[in-house]
Amino acid sequence: MAIHIRVVTPITTQGFRISADAAPLESEGVKVDFVNIDTGPASIECDYEIILAQPGTVARIVEAERHGADAVVIDCMGDPGLFGARECVAIPVLGPMQTAMGVAAMMGHKFSVVTVLSRILPMIATQAAVYGLSGKLASARSVNIPVLELEKDLAATKRALIAEARKAVIEDGADYIIFGCTGMLGCADAVHEGLLKDGLNVPVIDPVPTAVNVAAALVRSRLAHSKQTYQQPPRKTVVGYTNIGIGVESRAAAE
Amino acid sequence: MAIHIRVVTPITTQGFRISADAAPLESEGVKVDFVNIDTGPASIECDYEIILAQPGTVARIVEAERHGADAVVIDCMGDPGLFGARECVAIPVLGPMQTAMGVAAMMGHKFSVVTVLSRILPMIATQAAVYGLSGKLASARSVNIPVLELEKDLAATKRALIAEARKAVIEDGADYIIFGCTGMLGCADAVHEGLLKDGLNVPVIDPVPTAVNVAAALVRSRLAHSKQTYQQPPRKTVVGYTNIGIGVESRAAAE
Amino acid sequence: MAIHIRVVTPITTQGFRISADAAPLESEGVKVDFVNIDTGPASIECDYEIILAQPGTVARIVEAERHGADAVVIDCMGDPGLFGARECVAIPVLGPMQTAMGVAAMMGHKFSVVTVLSRILPMIATQAAVYGLSGKLASARSVNIPVLELEKDLAATKRALIAEARKAVIEDGADYIIFGCTGMLGCADAVHEGLLKDGLNVPVIDPVPTAVNVAAALVRSRLAHSKQTYQQPPRKTVVGYTNIGIGVESRAAAE
Amino acid sequence: MAIHIRVVTPITTQGFRISADAAPLESEGVKVDFVNIDTGPASIECDYEIILAQPGTVARIVEAERHGADAVVIDCMGDPGLFGARECVAIPVLGPMQTAMGVAAMMGHKFSVVTVLSRILPMIATQAAVYGLSGKLASARSVNIPVLELEKDLAATKRALIAEARKAVIEDGADYIIFGCTGMLGCADAVHEGLLKDGLNVPVIDPVPTAVNVAAALVRSRLAHSKQTYQQPPRKTVVGYTNIGIGVESRAAAE
Amino acid sequence: MAIHIRVVTPITTQGFRISADAAPLESEGVKVDFVNIDTGPASIECDYEIILAQPGTVARIVEAERHGADAVVIDCMGDPGLFGARECVAIPVLGPMQTAMGVAAMMGHKFSVVTVLSRILPMIATQAAVYGLSGKLASARSVNIPVLELEKDLAATKRALIAEARKAVIEDGADYIIFGCTGMLGCADAVHEGLLKDGLNVPVIDPVPTAVNVAAALVRSRLAHSKQTYQQPPRKTVVGYTNIGIGVESRAAAE
Amino acid sequence: MAIHIRVVTPITTQGFRISADAAPLESEGVKVDFVNIDTGPASIECDYEIILAQPGTVARIVEAERHGADAVVIDCMGDPGLFGARECVAIPVLGPMQTAMGVAAMMGHKFSVVTVLSRILPMIATQAAVYGLSGKLASARSVNIPVLELEKDLAATKRALIAEARKAVIEDGADYIIFGCTGMLGCADAVHEGLLKDGLNVPVIDPVPTAVNVAAALVRSRLAHSKQTYQQPPRKTVVGYTNIGIGVESRAAAE
Repeated sequence: MAIHIRVVTPITTQGFRISADAAPLESEGVKVDFVNIDTGPASIECDYEIILAQPGTVARIVEAERHGADAVVIDCMGDPGLFGARECVAIPVLGPMQTAMGVAAMMGHKFSVVTVLSRILPMIATQAAVYGLSGKLASARSVNIPVLELEKDLAATKRALIAEARKAVIEDGADYIIFGCTGMLGCADAVHEGLLKDGLNVPVIDPVPTAVNVAAALVRSRLAHSKQTYQQPPRKTVVGYTNIGIGVESRAAAE
Repeated sequence: MAIHIRVVTPITTQGFRISADAAPLESEGVKVDFVNIDTGPASIECDYEIILAQPGTVARIVEAERHGADAVVIDCMGDPGLFGARECVAIPVLGPMQTAMGVAAMMGHKFSVVTVLSRILPMIATQAAVYGLSGKLASARSVNIPVLELEKDLAATKRALIAEARKAVIEDGADYIIFGCTGMLGCADAVHEGLLKDGLNVPVIDPVPTAVNVAAALVRSRLAHSKQTYQQPPRKTVVGYTNIGIGVESRAAAE
Repeated sequence: MAIHIRVVTPITTQGFRISADAAPLESEGVKVDFVNIDTGPASIECDYEIILAQPGTVARIVEAERHGADAVVIDCMGDPGLFGARECVAIPVLGPMQTAMGVAAMMGHKFSVVTVLSRILPMIATQAAVYGLSGKLASARSVNIPVLELEKDLAATKRALIAEARKAVIEDGADYIIFGCTGMLGCADAVHEGLLKDGLNVPVIDPVPTAVNVAAALVRSRLAHSKQTYQQPPRKTVVGYTNIGIGVESRAAAE
Repeated sequence: MAIHIRVVTPITTQGFRISADAAPLESEGVKVDFVNIDTGPASIECDYEIILAQPGTVARIVEAERHGADAVVIDCMGDPGLFGARECVAIPVLGPMQTAMGVAAMMGHKFSVVTVLSRILPMIATQAAVYGLSGKLASARSVNIPVLELEKDLAATKRALIAEARKAVIEDGADYIIFGCTGMLGCADAVHEGLLKDGLNVPVIDPVPTAVNVAAALVRSRLAHSKQTYQQPPRKTVVGYTNIGIGVESRAAAE
Repeated sequence: MAIHIRVVTPITTQGFRISADAAPLESEGVKVDFVNIDTGPASIECDYEIILAQPGTVARIVEAERHGADAVVIDCMGDPGLFGARECVAIPVLGPMQTAMGVAAMMGHKFSVVTVLSRILPMIATQAAVYGLSGKLASARSVNIPVLELEKDLAATKRALIAEARKAVIEDGADYIIFGCTGMLGCADAVHEGLLKDGLNVPVIDPVPTAVNVAAALVRSRLAHSKQTYQQPPRKTVVGYTNIGIGVESRAAAE
Repeated sequence: MAIHIRVVTPITTQGFRISADAAPLESEGVKVDFVNIDTGPASIECDYEIILAQPGTVARIVEAERHGADAVVIDCMGDPGLFGARECVAIPVLGPMQTAMGVAAMMGHKFSVVTVLSRILPMIATQAAVYGLSGKLASARSVNIPVLELEKDLAATKRALIAEARKAVIEDGADYIIFGCTGMLGCADAVHEGLLKDGLNVPVIDPVPTAVNVAAALVRSRLAHSKQTYQQPPRKTVVGYTNIGIGVESRAAAE
């Protein structure tokens, strides 16, 4: 039976992901589907929006396990809800930033993250610290294009990505590039080739496909996050999240 | 005019804080009041509950600024909503864990955090990493008493705190103790004296009073968090948090 | 066409790996085979033996690429020849220690490595430093059984592994266990269950199968080590390794 | 009764501080006074001068405790005598560099220190290491104006401070600025506004007022440095410092 | 002409060093002599006493250069005056703690320092941080014998040193031992042999002889401390140290 | 009797070292000789070539001990075979990179390494990590001249070294320079003077002479690498290195 990976897109913008996005992520023995969240922000570009996205994201991950998914990938480089969701389920939950940083740290000397807006740069350094990889982060850079405008002029987006990736390699000493927004899905080949033209043979990680493939590898290795650290939340009254029922007795706020 | 510090208790348990709790936190020229949140968990003992507490906590912090508060202290050692709230307001927002770690790092060589449950220990190490203080953390230890049971047998709680603090000093090399739960409010003197009886002259931080005093010091120094890092969130559609209106155009989920 | 992963066993002991060892490592779309080296030590238990194993190991990895392999996994936790081999080939080369540390760092808080002999413990700390993961290493521990005796009394080996893994979790704060020798292949389930009996729900990584699965994930993600860092060696005269011909003009020593 | 903070200026230049400097540092319930030292250098711009300033500074801090001060702030960013003075007294002793770094680390992502002379830059990096905050230091920069010439052309000093602070934010990634010399007292508002004109909303710490306010916060929290680490010096013969009598039996050198 | 190494003993106790102590430190082409200081503490066991020792120590080092010495070794593991003295002279100035830590870091995996009193332990960790070697420090331990009592019962001192060194190796993972007090001069062989009896083949550094030998090696390599960092102090009025004349115009305090 | 230091040049190029190279390395009581290896690469410019150089290098070091040498210095900044050779012998084995980094860390604030080719730069950062000195490495830079061409136009080589060293000091904050290739032997004075002309008083380490002098200092201090970490390899069958006989029973590959 095929491994089933559920990708949870933690924003409420309709049409950001379409069903045709799943097929390119599949491989032999691996089926992929997408869900998005009902409550939360239109896109994620700051810590406040991560906070708004997380309750719905965790609910979707709990639902994924109930639906029989073998693993979940969160579809945002802020990895919203990653640790809290791991508490609620036993199947592996992967954040694309943590996974991409982990892969880049294994296969290269230092990596850079090229993201959408400069306001996100300190958050990326904090993620590297949380994931124990501060010493492998060459730099974080931004193209200064908001998430929902990345596809407006895709050629311009790719040019901007190549320009910043180039600076990351030449000025910051990076030898691996990570996209800092899952909205850049599908641009990796173009950026890799753009760098090659300058004689820079530098791999470029498209984080969601990579995280899906690593998730399948973990399922095949019968490994998940450690439940010693990510223990099941205690049963407890929660007011106001009646749609989220894991490990808690919810009450509506008006109750 | 007095400095007004608002303490936001990020749980929904009624009576956890009472109005009499404010007076001991006040000092010359400083007025303190408490609010709690409407939606969220009964108490906070894991990352999942932090996720559930954060949207309501940020809303209360935005409200505090609108109410004219000069600074906000979050009343939970998980510092829920700290960075996201800083994005939404200009007045200083302090987390008691970050503040206590900062004070202990200044005034001692290495600190230990004594908290409620062992499941929280990795979260404390992660907080130290995010706050840039991993090298000052001697250890994290737990008394294995849930938050809402700390006051059931206060004498037993204090004995357990002294026992773990003692081990932190003797076995782990700590010279400063931080309480890992704001529910331990008011126990610092007893634990300090318990340690003194063993010849261990080790300061014990009661985090909420300390954070209130440091918040007033920042107000007097006209300093707040850096808005260069914690920039205002972009205006954006948010679905399902109609009670939270900062920087966003909210829509009800059912809308 | 199936992905072909070649596992290179960098020792000269015949029968250490048999052809039946490959099948359990295969999965849908992934074929695995083993080769060992002709020149080098009978087993690897110190840095000197790594030095003796490396030239033959790199030669086998160069040969694997010529044979059409899509990726190579080195079958020793010392990761002998890892960086030098990456210079010589374009297909991904994975060391099981680096891969296991990377996976454990992603999916847990801190990991411990349980290896064969205490003399290896400093080498493991050095590996963590080279791989940028010193901050995630809880401890390294040993069962004090030489590589070639691990299978003599397999039940005793498993008991020793469980005992050390247990101490790693309880005394050192590990929440993920990595086997420190690929000769422990096949013991992961027993150790995981042994820990579960003590209420410790801690994943145990069997490094070679995990590295094979991650290698396939990288191939599917079209990612390899960075050739920006691991550049092809210059063509150059080498004396005395006539059997190794990559990027060099070899000469026999007696020539 | 008011909290009494004594500020010890560790140089011998008369008129560097005047009595009017105290009032702006006071707040409700907090009284401040200044003393300077009798023996030591005219100003402090290198490690050698710190060495010459320290014995007199510690003597002044011991005297402050005897005079009933509740806390002491050292008036030099080299924090001369900080740890030794903490050994000699029980009241909190604060160094303005340690305090400013601690506050900046709490309220921002990374800080830069802008100081007088380039020769001091390595000393600032060493201070960050000693205080456990190397990871939060974005950079140290200098305006290349000696301490005792800062006030000669105050407008030029402010322009130079703004120019270096700007580079710290834009080139080095700082989001918080610390003055590296207490002789820059009173320039914080001008520098903050200069940065704002460039759209850089970055807090600027004036270290002595900030340290005075934090000292009062510690007194109100009944916290001081840990006497577990900063233990009272043993009674012991000292030759040649007859003016310094704490914990020692002094003898004149000529005796 | 022979290399002349001056050893400066930074305490005022007469007879702590005698002229016979120099000969064992000499080697082919290297002459050694000792001087002690006139003003300062009887011994050094805390930061306050380092402060009292430093002005006289620097004066002796300046004098050594004037006397034609080729290098100076400070005879105290607190390395009093090390950086300030380097500012004042061009000949190499070595601290025995920095040198011993540097040698141990080169020749072993992790070192432990065994010192006199437990109150010194945090100071040793701080030294490791300043010298950039925190990651190589396995532990600091103490025998709880004051400096001036080490020789009262030398056999007991050696037994205590062996006992703590043994724990450092077995419990803390050290493979190199550094004496934490130069008063332990001459005990290295006994401690090394004591460890060997337990099967622990661990080098023991006697810091002053080692620093003398390394100082000679630096002189032969024509290397000293970097004057780029340790720049000459500016000429400046100093009050009260009329006996110290380097780079300053001294004035007596009473003047 | 004189101390005998053997320098092992780990390449097979004849005439790279000549007998006249030994005399300048000698000092009172210290005799130096050179040997090169029989099997291995013509020069070392990547990790692959280190792998090829190591077996022969270790064999030469074992032979040196048998020949009565008191210490060995490896004549390549990649420190090939350093840890494995330490396992095989009891006399001190020094790598010039580790020694130079250790000396620079002691005598300066931060060092830079100026090497031959840019492809080596990540390897230098890895060496700093292995030696525990990442925090002291200001930068690694290259002149882009291959090892065997350094002497073709020695004036151009020196000019390139000065230019990169200058950038290391001014742009990267280095205050100590280390040559990254032992083929730069003899250029230190020229580079030091070149920097002095720009007012940069920065020491320049010529690594082989420095390592020889430090090796003699260790012999005089009766210190070597820790045999607790670098334990003798177990006796074991090795196939194919019949010329290397330490601790193993060798067999020819064809046997």
